[in-house]
Amino acid sequence: MQSRLLGEGLLRSWFVTLEPGDEVMEGLSSFAVRESIDVASFTAIGGLEAASLGFYNVQTKGFDDVKLDPEQVEVLSLMGEITFDEGNPWVHAHVVVGRRNGTTSGGHLLRGIVQPILIVTLNELPHALEPHHV
Amino acid sequence: MQSRLLGEGLLRSWFVTLEPGDEVMEGLSSFAVRESIDVASFTAIGGLEAASLGFYNVQTKGFDDVKLDPEQVEVLSLMGEITFDEGNPWVHAHVVVGRRNGTTSGGHLLRGIVQPILIVTLNELPHALEPHHV
Amino acid sequence: MQSRLLGEGLLRSWFVTLEPGDEVMEGLSSFAVRESIDVASFTAIGGLEAASLGFYNVQTKGFDDVKLDPEQVEVLSLMGEITFDEGNPWVHAHVVVGRRNGTTSGGHLLRGIVQPILIVTLNELPHALEPHHV
Repeated sequence: MQSRLLGEGLLRSWFVTLEPGDEVMEGLSSFAVRESIDVASFTAIGGLEAASLGFYNVQTKGFDDVKLDPEQVEVLSLMGEITFDEGNPWVHAHVVVGRRNGTTSGGHLLRGIVQPILIVTLNELPHALEPHHV
Repeated sequence: MQSRLLGEGLLRSWFVTLEPGDEVMEGLSSFAVRESIDVASFTAIGGLEAASLGFYNVQTKGFDDVKLDPEQVEVLSLMGEITFDEGNPWVHAHVVVGRRNGTTSGGHLLRGIVQPILIVTLNELPHALEPHHV
Repeated sequence: MQSRLLGEGLLRSWFVTLEPGDEVMEGLSSFAVRESIDVASFTAIGGLEAASLGFYNVQTKGFDDVKLDPEQVEVLSLMGEITFDEGNPWVHAHVVVGRRNGTTSGGHLLRGIVQPILIVTLNELPHALEPHHV
């Protein structure tokens, strides 16, 4: 186990509303860059008209594609963190989507096109200290 | 994409515990009114003895009913926001529920009757500034 | 409905990163004890190589086992709270897991072995006041 104390309290909080046609990963990345967010945690609900999901393959250390029919889905939960690696934003997000009949699928979000809206509660956390093993 | 800077830090935080027979949407709405909460974000886990779920229909801009057998379910995740529109609370919540055999369903929560408990972590956010397109 | 006002603002926030082989419930419990966290709320995403899930049985007030094939799964959402009862940490967590084909299952997390990582955003909340019925 490692932990990073992120400091006391939160810094800025936003509702970020992605709109029809916005791509989720790109939207969150560009938002983090523009607002100079260093570390953030987020949760979101809304809908997507298209999504690409991955399943982390422990052997290849890459993502296998998750088969998902192209259709409008509810975003039942989307959560993750944004960090920066050498100046580049890294959005790490897992999603559960719901279909018209209530069935669900999920995975690591690779790409999602918003329809009609995605409402993201994004909390900026104080700059992470160096991790330490605990 | 739009964003609303919700200010720095959070205001008040609560554990709101809904009890057997409480209806979720009504409970959260009345709580927000009573505590004069303007904007809040929440996550919750617990259980429901009955739930009505919807699927947003992009064409009709209404909710289609999601068929869900009436049975006790776990609330595996419930998340969303509370905002006010002309003085009326608007609770926007998506849920993933789990059955006895571990299978899941989900959708936009229209109505849920708590059994035996629903524990809501509710964070009041500073008053939203006007949204701006980004 | 009961609520506990948890005070204004948050106290400390962490990213707690659980590593391969770490057990989730034990990891979060020991972390809470070591950091003298009294009340906390958390969300997490990552992966598990093994998990035991329960379904709360309203009649027996215990957990029925949820059948889950032993396999690597994504943690699509893990959320809950940590409280203390007479000095003992109580981690209450519900999880939705995803399989290689995108299907999902979920329940009350009884035990989970991390692989390759579980990233937990953990927010310490001010000491809970006595609950009051509302």
